[in-house]
Amino acid sequence: MGDIELNKCVLGIDTGGTKTSLAAVDGRGGIQFSKEISSPSTDEQMMVKALLDLVDWGLSESSRKELDVLGIGLGSAGFVLRDEGILVESPNVSWSMVPLKRLVSGHTGLPTFLDNDANVAALGERFAGECRGVDDFVYLTLGTGIGGAICVDGEVYRGHRGTAAEIGHMIIEPDGPPCKCGSRGCLETLASGTALEREAARFMADDDASVLRRMCKGDTGGLTGEMISEAAEEGDPAALKAFSYIAHYLGLGLVNLIHLLDPEIVVIGGGVSRSGHLLLDDVRSVVRERGVPALVEGAQIVLSALGRDAGLIGSAALAWEGIGRLS
Amino acid sequence: MGDIELNKCVLGIDTGGTKTSLAAVDGRGGIQFSKEISSPSTDEQMMVKALLDLVDWGLSESSRKELDVLGIGLGSAGFVLRDEGILVESPNVSWSMVPLKRLVSGHTGLPTFLDNDANVAALGERFAGECRGVDDFVYLTLGTGIGGAICVDGEVYRGHRGTAAEIGHMIIEPDGPPCKCGSRGCLETLASGTALEREAARFMADDDASVLRRMCKGDTGGLTGEMISEAAEEGDPAALKAFSYIAHYLGLGLVNLIHLLDPEIVVIGGGVSRSGHLLLDDVRSVVRERGVPALVEGAQIVLSALGRDAGLIGSAALAWEGIGRLS
Repeated sequence: MGDIELNKCVLGIDTGGTKTSLAAVDGRGGIQFSKEISSPSTDEQMMVKALLDLVDWGLSESSRKELDVLGIGLGSAGFVLRDEGILVESPNVSWSMVPLKRLVSGHTGLPTFLDNDANVAALGERFAGECRGVDDFVYLTLGTGIGGAICVDGEVYRGHRGTAAEIGHMIIEPDGPPCKCGSRGCLETLASGTALEREAARFMADDDASVLRRMCKGDTGGLTGEMISEAAEEGDPAALKAFSYIAHYLGLGLVNLIHLLDPEIVVIGGGVSRSGHLLLDDVRSVVRERGVPALVEGAQIVLSALGRDAGLIGSAALAWEGIGRLS
Repeated sequence: MGDIELNKCVLGIDTGGTKTSLAAVDGRGGIQFSKEISSPSTDEQMMVKALLDLVDWGLSESSRKELDVLGIGLGSAGFVLRDEGILVESPNVSWSMVPLKRLVSGHTGLPTFLDNDANVAALGERFAGECRGVDDFVYLTLGTGIGGAICVDGEVYRGHRGTAAEIGHMIIEPDGPPCKCGSRGCLETLASGTALEREAARFMADDDASVLRRMCKGDTGGLTGEMISEAAEEGDPAALKAFSYIAHYLGLGLVNLIHLLDPEIVVIGGGVSRSGHLLLDDVRSVVRERGVPALVEGAQIVLSALGRDAGLIGSAALAWEGIGRLS
């Protein structure tokens, strides 16, 4: 990539249940411009139309800015058949079996690539984030659930049938809380944003003085990650205990990942990682305490620095990588 | 491998704390002849001499049988620097930092390769065992401890610093039994031969009628895996409960491995796998009950068929693979 022409770019598109965003991204990972629309997620036809309209806007905006668009990368939550370019299903969106790759490439004539959000975010870390030049790493996304990607020799490891890296369903506490997958004590039930909210509500119930009570106006169900994060910043014991709970289990999960995979870096991304400074020290000490020293001491644990742009930079990385393979 | 000449072979050598064995193995994985000696494990010089004497014997025996030896593969328990060909340390043997590869290749003039026992056994499964033609699989060795290897695209996955696949130190029960690694509830403390013996002693203590009491003559410390296996075959409840205990945790460990790695096959080898028929049904039902169906249903769980020859076939596979890379 020594010879990057900054008038060339790709369009990275991050589709989700509440919003869909697009960015024109150059070969260095710089966002030239971007736009976000709300997803008409209850209607498949409307979703497709909104997506293609957004692509059209991206192409005309690129042309106006004299940017040459070389390809399009699409990242989506849910289950994706990457090679076929089909979005099988996606949470909170009523589309299924949508041939997104063919639709977009047919509409634009541009090479188009599709992958799921976790794989795409991992590619973004390698392209312009914490893992530049790193071949073996694990990317974890902490949000409502927990997802992830495993990179081996610089490529996303997909396994035999393409379902690898279901990090959220690693069982950590065999008799732990029930998981929506049907099992119990999966990492997702212990260290996700959902677990943070559940535990904060529990600690708040035992703590009359918790500022969380005021924040959620006594409505436990109304507690959000933002509230808990804010309360923790203020030193609220219930909120701090909730962060410490998920950090404990996240640390145990990372011990397992490092023991199995010996990555150079573990990157933590996703919504919860924006409050990651409240987690990181605890996570690192659990890894130090519970890991085999010779195995864990060489693995760095860092927060993603891409923040809300992770999906866009990742989708763009997918496109740049795909174009590289074609040429 | 369409053009295998059966007068060509490699020497596979399996070194351990109690015995060292050698076999001449042809390109189809057939053992032409073999020999086992006891390891003079308390003296490094004697260990090296015994090894080189065994190699000399193997070469002259090959010559007598008109077999052409193309290379030598060495498998050893312990920590190995594969590229450098150095055995850093090995349990129950008083040698350390031994440049085994250079010693043997210098002595014989033959291309020589060294790797640890778990990686070597996994190569053996791919060469002549359950994983012929399989690119993505996990090999687990159940013995006194638990080790393993992860194969990705037909090669042993080593990770960033070469320490990957420490499957025995995956934490499954955070408050479980202490592990010699310093942590608690590692798979090795819950599903190894050592765990089987510990649990059988515990169940026997609560069961006056257990045949285990007679077998070990009341000496709990004298219980062996063979006794527990024999008692389980006779239907002894304490022995059966001990097998069921380790099967439960082994099943949880396999769920995690399958969710993370999406292997085509999981092969269970090592000493305990010789009683594997007492485990397999339970392990498979735990995986069915606790795994995400779409993720676990495509992964086969099988016992190694190589038995006591796993180390020899594996070391030979290492040699055949190494020669293939050289040519």
